[in-house]
Formats: sequence, C-alpha cells, structure tokens
Amino acid sequence: MNGAESLVRTLLASDVNVCFANPGTSEMHFVAALDHVPGVRCVLGLFEGVVTGAADGYWRMAGKPAATLLHLGPGLANGVANLHNARKASSGIVNVIGEHATHHLQYDAPLTADIAGIARPVSHWIGTAKTATEAAKLGAEAVAAARTGAGQIASLILPADTAWTDADGPAAAIAPPARKKADDAAIQAAAQALKAAGANGMLMLGGVGLLRRGLELAARIAAATGCRLSNSGYSARMERGGGLPQVGRIPFVVDQALAYLKDVRELVLVGGRTPVAFFAYPGKPSLLLPQGCNTTAVASIDDDVIDALERLADAVGAPKSVAPAAQPPLPALPDGTPTPDKVAAAIAALLPEQAIVVDESVTSGRGIFAAAAASAPHDWLNNMGGSIGFSFPVAVGCALACPDRKVVALTGDGSAFYTLQALWTMAREKLDITMVVFANRSYAILRNELANVGAANPGPRAIDMLTLDRPDPDWVALAKGHGVGGRRVDDMGDFAKAFRAALAEPGPQLIELVL
Amino acid sequence: MNGAESLVRTLLASDVNVCFANPGTSEMHFVAALDHVPGVRCVLGLFEGVVTGAADGYWRMAGKPAATLLHLGPGLANGVANLHNARKASSGIVNVIGEHATHHLQYDAPLTADIAGIARPVSHWIGTAKTATEAAKLGAEAVAAARTGAGQIASLILPADTAWTDADGPAAAIAPPARKKADDAAIQAAAQALKAAGANGMLMLGGVGLLRRGLELAARIAAATGCRLSNSGYSARMERGGGLPQVGRIPFVVDQALAYLKDVRELVLVGGRTPVAFFAYPGKPSLLLPQGCNTTAVASIDDDVIDALERLADAVGAPKSVAPAAQPPLPALPDGTPTPDKVAAAIAALLPEQAIVVDESVTSGRGIFAAAAASAPHDWLNNMGGSIGFSFPVAVGCALACPDRKVVALTGDGSAFYTLQALWTMAREKLDITMVVFANRSYAILRNELANVGAANPGPRAIDMLTLDRPDPDWVALAKGHGVGGRRVDDMGDFAKAFRAALAEPGPQLIELVL
Repeated sequence: MNGAESLVRTLLASDVNVCFANPGTSEMHFVAALDHVPGVRCVLGLFEGVVTGAADGYWRMAGKPAATLLHLGPGLANGVANLHNARKASSGIVNVIGEHATHHLQYDAPLTADIAGIARPVSHWIGTAKTATEAAKLGAEAVAAARTGAGQIASLILPADTAWTDADGPAAAIAPPARKKADDAAIQAAAQALKAAGANGMLMLGGVGLLRRGLELAARIAAATGCRLSNSGYSARMERGGGLPQVGRIPFVVDQALAYLKDVRELVLVGGRTPVAFFAYPGKPSLLLPQGCNTTAVASIDDDVIDALERLADAVGAPKSVAPAAQPPLPALPDGTPTPDKVAAAIAALLPEQAIVVDESVTSGRGIFAAAAASAPHDWLNNMGGSIGFSFPVAVGCALACPDRKVVALTGDGSAFYTLQALWTMAREKLDITMVVFANRSYAILRNELANVGAANPGPRAIDMLTLDRPDPDWVALAKGHGVGGRRVDDMGDFAKAFRAALAEPGPQLIELVL
Repeated sequence: MNGAESLVRTLLASDVNVCFANPGTSEMHFVAALDHVPGVRCVLGLFEGVVTGAADGYWRMAGKPAATLLHLGPGLANGVANLHNARKASSGIVNVIGEHATHHLQYDAPLTADIAGIARPVSHWIGTAKTATEAAKLGAEAVAAARTGAGQIASLILPADTAWTDADGPAAAIAPPARKKADDAAIQAAAQALKAAGANGMLMLGGVGLLRRGLELAARIAAATGCRLSNSGYSARMERGGGLPQVGRIPFVVDQALAYLKDVRELVLVGGRTPVAFFAYPGKPSLLLPQGCNTTAVASIDDDVIDALERLADAVGAPKSVAPAAQPPLPALPDGTPTPDKVAAAIAALLPEQAIVVDESVTSGRGIFAAAAASAPHDWLNNMGGSIGFSFPVAVGCALACPDRKVVALTGDGSAFYTLQALWTMAREKLDITMVVFANRSYAILRNELANVGAANPGPRAIDMLTLDRPDPDWVALAKGHGVGGRRVDDMGDFAKAFRAALAEPGPQLIELVL
C-alpha cells in the first residue's frame, strides 16, 4: 500500500467520505487510490473555488469534514477565497494539496510555489508529509484538527513521492479535544447582567447556538429575562421558520446597526462575537456597541455553546419550555415590477419545507431573511468571510450533504460570476438546487459605498468599475453552457411561476430575475 | 489631495496608465481618484484571475507594468494563480490591494485577512502604507520594483484610511537598477565551449533573447559555432515566423525531452535556464541534461541579455549578419475529422501577420508551435507557471497593449473554464481576440499522466476526475452569456472557415472545435 492509499484509508477511518477535487499530475496517485478504495464519493469541480466552497457547505450541513484535493500551490490559491469564508464560518475542512516530489522541489519547476505560505493565512493546521509512512499519521491529525472547536481548516501537503512510495497502512482516527466549558463565574455574571438589564439585555448567539436546541434554550433565557436575541450580523447556519424562536441580526449599514444596538446595556456572548462594522468609513465607528454597554463573554464559538446555554438558562431560572413564537403570516404573492420587498415576499411565501437557503443576495435580497421568518422550517446560511463567489459552491456542498432537501441559492449577479463553474458540478451530480440570480447588472453595493466613503457624483470611469452592463450578462445562456436549465423573468408574477416550477423539478435550475 | 489621489498621480508619473480592476468598498477612494484624474485607462474584470492575468499579458506586449486593483486579502487570493504565472514569466506588475482602515484591523471583521501573507509567495516586493503621505512614495518604489530585472511582482497594500486622508502629493518616478552585465570570463568560457562543441552545443535563450534582436544575435552565434538554439520549454514571449531564426523547445514529455537533449555536451545559458522536468515521475530524472554535459551560465533573465549576446557573438567571431532562414512552406488547409496535426496545419496556415498567439493548448495544440514557424511574423506567449486559466486573461492584456494587432488565444476546454469571466471584459472593451477552445471534454493531459505515474486501467471514479463530459460544456452558450459571439465546429473545413471569419471580424470571437 502506497502513501496515497494509506491516506485515503485513513480519511475513511476518520469518517471522511466525500472528496471535492480538482487534481493534476502530482495528485494522480491519490486519484488512483480513490479509484480502487471504495467508500469515498469524489466530486469534480472545474475551478478550485468551487471545490473549497463545496467543502464549506458540506461541513455546515453534514457536521463533519469533507476532503478537498487541490493541485499544488496555484490550485490551493484558487481555493483560498472560499477557504477564507470557511475559516470565518468555523467550518472544518481537510485540504489535501499535492506537491512536487521532494527531490524535485530544488529545481524550481514551473509549478513550484510556497504551498505552506499560501495555506498559512487560511489554515489552522498545516502539515507536510516528509515520507510516505508519515502521510497516514498526518491525515488522522488533519481530520482531528478540522474537527477541533467549532471547526478548523487543516491543510495537508502531500509530495508526489510520499504518495507513490510504499507505506505502512492507514492510521486510526484521532478524537478532537473536548470543547471547553464556560466558567461558572461567567455564567453567573451573565445571568445577573441579563436579569438586571431586561429589554436592554442582548444575548449574542453563534455556532450551534443558532440551531434548534440552542434557539430553544435562548428563547427560555429570553422569556426569563426579557433580553433580545441576536447574531453578529450573519450566521454560518441558522435553523428558523416554522415558529422557531427568532433571532435578530445586526444590519450591514453602520447607521442602521447603531440604531439596532443603541438600547443595549448588557451584552452576553454565547457563541457570538462583539459587533463590529463590516468596513470602516470616514467618521464612523468600528465598534457598534453604545457607550457604557457592558459585555460578558461566556462562551466562544469554539467552546461548548449548548452547555453554556443550558447552564445560563438554569442560572436565570428560565421556564422549562416556552410556547413557540406566533409565526408571522405568509406574505401574499406579489405581482408586477420587482422591488426588494416583493422579492422578499415571493421567496418567503414559496420557500419549501426543509429548504437550505444559501444567501449571497448582497443588496437585492436584504429583506428576504426577515420575511422568511414566516416560512416553513428551513436553514439559513450566510457568507461569514465577505469574499463573494460563495453561494453556488456552498450550495453544491449542502446538496451533497442533504440529498433529500431542496437547496435555494440566492445571489447577486456580481457575486455569481466569481465561481459560476459550480453550475457544471450541479449538472453532473444532478444536485437539487434552485438558484435565483438577482440581475441588477452592477455591484450595486458599491454605488452606495462610493457615496458612503464621501465620493459623491462619480464620473464614467468610476461608474464603469461598478456596473456589469455593456454587455448585459445572459445568465440563461451561462447556465445552458454549464448544462443547467434556466429561465429569465422581469415580473414578479412570472418569477413566482418560475420559482415554483424550478422547485418542483429535480436537479439544478437557475432563474435570472432582472431588476 | 488624499492618499489615493497622490498614488494615482504617482503611478501616472511613473508611466503606469492602465489599471485592471475589481474593486470593493475599501478601494472606493482609489476608484474615485481614478475617476477624476485623467490618464489611467480602467478595465474591469469580473474575477481577479482575469485582472492579474491581463496585467501579465499587458507587460509582455507593452514592456511596462500595468496596475491591478484588488479587494483585500480574498480579492488578492483570487488573483494569486495568475500572479504565480506572471512571476514565473518575469512579468512586472504593480498590485494595489485595498485593506481595512488601520484602526479597523484589530476587530477582525469578516474580510480581515493576512494580506501580506497572501502576497508573499508571489511577490518580489511588498509594501504597506502606514500613513497617507507614505502612499505616493511606496507607489513609486513599487513601480521601480516591478521594472527591476526582467520584471517583478510588486504588491502595495493600501489601508482605506491612508487612501482617504490628506497627503502631500505625488512622488516622482524612480529608475529601476541597471541590469547586470555578464562577466567577461563567462563570455569567454561560453565562446570556447560553443566553438569546441559544434553541433553538440546548445545556446539556451530566455527573456528578451527571444525577441527579434536577441534572435538575430543568436543566429549569428549559431552560424559561427554550429550550436543549436533552444528555450527552456516555454517562453514568456517569442518573436517568430516570417523567416526569423527558429528556436527549439524542450518537449513536455520527459522521454522526448531526454531525446531532444541527448547530444548536448555544452550548454550555455543566456537568459535561459537549466532544463528540468515539469513534474517528477517515479523512476524518471528531474534534470534533463545528459550525464557529463557542461553548463556555462552567462546571463540570467534578469541580467542584460542583449549585451551578453552581443559580446558572445563577438567572442565567437560571428558573422555580421546571416541570411534569414529559409521559411518552411505554409501547410495546406486540411479537411475532415480534426487531428492534432490538422489543427496545427490549419492554424499555422491562417495565422495573420503580427498575430499575438497566447498558447494554452495543453494537449490538443502541441503541434501548433512547430507548424507556425511557417506562418507570417507573430509573437508566441506561453504559460510559464503551469497554472491553467492563463490564456483568456493574458489575451485581454495583450489586446489592450497592442490594439492594432490580432490576438489569438488557443486553449483546452479544461483550462478555459478557470477564468472564463475574461470573455465579458473582451466584450465590454471590444478587444480584437479570436479564441479557439479545443473541446476534448477532458483534462486530456491527466489521462496520460495517470498512466505515467503508474496508475494504469483507471476505474470510473478516477475517469470522472479527468473528464469534462456529463454534461458537455457548451462554449457557444458560455460565450453568448458573456456577450461574445461563438461558433461550434467539428470538421477541419468548417474550422478553417470559422477561424477565417473570426479573424476578419473586429472584436472577440470564440470557436469551439469539438475533438
């Protein structure tokens, strides 16, 4: 058994059985091992940003890491942006990155690059196999690293000779370290703070605190103390709809965020973070909390968030259960010219039960999250790292993790362009994904941002940098080119029909909604 | 004048007047400055790999650096693969990378990343503006760094507050250091070696040694010594056709490369490098020179290559001029089912005068280079870094550098997918680019490579990692989606018609040749 096969068998022993891949010559032994060792599902992406984004989505919905297979430094580099997003989302991923044979590195061949250097900014753990026998051991360590805390990025560099040389065999799985429990003193301090603050208290949730069990605990704490529930702006995954306790979110726009937080006197962090502005702007604060607000950090996202919520619920004397919140009525299906409110209403009204929503609708879809509180139970996934080109790849991973659920990817056209190659993987794997591309043919957010930074009245050279017109992209053609069916609509009645039809069909479908 | 404007005016003062851009919020002041300072042509790319590849192509044909404008760490990361290629090609590029305002960095906002860490593996020079007044000075240094040696990658990190705060004004251009001259002893040693070796001598050229003046000098040296002329396998830019002296190239396949080099007893490096295998393979050598071959290094690509060739020509007593080589006859236009030889013949026969060929035809087009020796005068550009997704972006930069010349981009379908968003920039800027996509619907090179590494008889899981069928990409639809016209052909007669028609039309045209 060579090093490559020992690594594949180690990954299987560690319950890693999906590999998103874009291999090259230096990974051919790993590909050959995947080929003759049954049990690993291999999914090809035509660009590495698809591969790493898919691994992110897979982790979020499967709760366990997938492997990626990447071709040397440049292949890894192409996946770095979505690894950045995954890192900020605390997703666990095991990257297997091929490298030249160790004896070949000294010659500075065309593809030679500083792979560890490229991996470092996005990796919690980096290992390089020095020998074939080391590959299995490092593989087990990489999986344990990926499973550490809320989830981490592990990057294992596999020189070609360590893949092709004989090795001992697979390594056994390594259990990740147990999650840290919150200090009792912090629990007591948080309980007192929330009880004293009433409606001026806020419980900031994150990680598994935003899944059903965490939300139910948070609702009990809110019932006992009157505190508000929030997340830090976005969430890697939140369960919601169907009467689940609702959690607010900090608006992107700084002035709106300040207004949202202005009455908070006691902030308690359980999995969540201190709210900060997405970007800095001249004359505006980075820290969004009002002056004098007190913060009690109970548990970070890497700690045992559920345990902390259970103990906090006890400490505030929370009721054993609270009645489900009254679910808002489903909005009516709108007609006519699209507006953000109408788009939000239509998607909320039609969202199917157990949908997995991957939301990258940067400007056009800002209202959808709030409206979908009225929808059937669903999961909501945000981009935690802000690097666009997130939604299509993440949708691929979600669909593979949850083949019985419908994935709905919502994206602006500017964002969708970054990793549109994901469409082909959706077609090949017949993934059940409905995509809505909001075609405003611009980086609409930047028009506001240009004004926000004080550059009003832009001229044509600046406007050209913010618009995607001249020519207008044709998303139906782009979908077709990748083997995916598409429809273009510019009216809300037609949108509802198209959205319903896409949801009713198996496999990927794209709707271009012209705004 | 704020820091952003002082930097834009500094770039202009240093003769940088093209900016390939994909900006975000943190770059809005720079965009505003580009807007109201006349003289910089801004070209938007919908993905950063397009932006950096275009800057590479621009350098190769314009001989001066363009700027890129990239959005924080992830935006830079998306451009790293083509920066890797540019670095290996010794292309000069000035990256301007936006960063959060300095006071905002401590809060670890979603887009916060280690930008310098991401830049390091692909940059010769990295600078971060600490204050607005520093931006101009660093800008001038960055341009000088980009112009150093054969060309370098300079990465300037511009925190948003250093862009928006008042600054002093632009900085004057800084002259790059003069290129090093070759040692006399090396010249003399090389002259003796080549004279002694006769037909067993090889002059390995690179950099400007592959442009007209260098080739003419090399031909005179060959006439005097009988040596062969070669490059190291690929060239960033080579002038050829129309009777220019021909230069061989080392084949990609190791056994073929060993055969090509087997008679070389004296190797002289003037701008070229010692030949090494692209990849390592079990049981095959990395170094391709035959045992006992002696190497004399006269000038590296960063040294004064033309001066070294002039002095070497004198030292070998070369004739003052040599008659132009007999140009091979143009091949006849083939008909029928495409084969690599027919493809090579057709493209060579139809290549227009002064074409700029950007070659990423990894497997299907390996014969085109040799055949095109018979073509009208043209430039030939290769991928020096091996990271695919190179040709479309580089073609963008070439077309902007040489608006009066026809750019011909030759690419496999697998490679083209990586950065297909370049098509949109071609459409917007009406760039005169004819693309040929060799649609073999596979990573054909990897089928060979799987066998080369000893993994014969692959099963379905391996085959799936090497094929782009299921579904077949539709390149005509992909072109249309980006606003570019396209045709699909699967017969050589139709190909010739389509290629001729595309060359006759202004603006971008794509031909999908199904193999």
